[in-house]
Amino acid sequence: MELIVKGMTCGHCEAAVQRAVKRVAPKAEVIIERARARVTVSGSDDAKGVESAIRAEGYEVAAIE
Amino acid sequence: MELIVKGMTCGHCEAAVQRAVKRVAPKAEVIIERARARVTVSGSDDAKGVESAIRAEGYEVAAIE
Repeated sequence: MELIVKGMTCGHCEAAVQRAVKRVAPKAEVIIERARARVTVSGSDDAKGVESAIRAEGYEVAAIE
Repeated sequence: MELIVKGMTCGHCEAAVQRAVKRVAPKAEVIIERARARVTVSGSDDAKGVESAIRAEGYEVAAIE
């Protein structure tokens, strides 16, 4: 799945989002493109869980594709 | 001392700068005002050490007052 995640301003934010996704989808591959506000998660279809984890970390999930 | 520190974009950055300063000045009080790009360090006069620690963390120290 691909998510548009707003509010990732730096590398620490990337790491925080990465960790948040991994907590709910430990086996997933997570690719973060901060400049595009894009998070690609492969190996998990738990979109709601991933979205919740990212929101709980303090970032806005603007879309899931 | 007061430092102007550029590049702190989020709370994670604040925490990283806080930790960096504490490593070289464990007993110092460190107050970070991100919106003003300002870091106030009380209880240490090791300006060079503090500056180096912040730079090593990846932030620009634009001035020390």
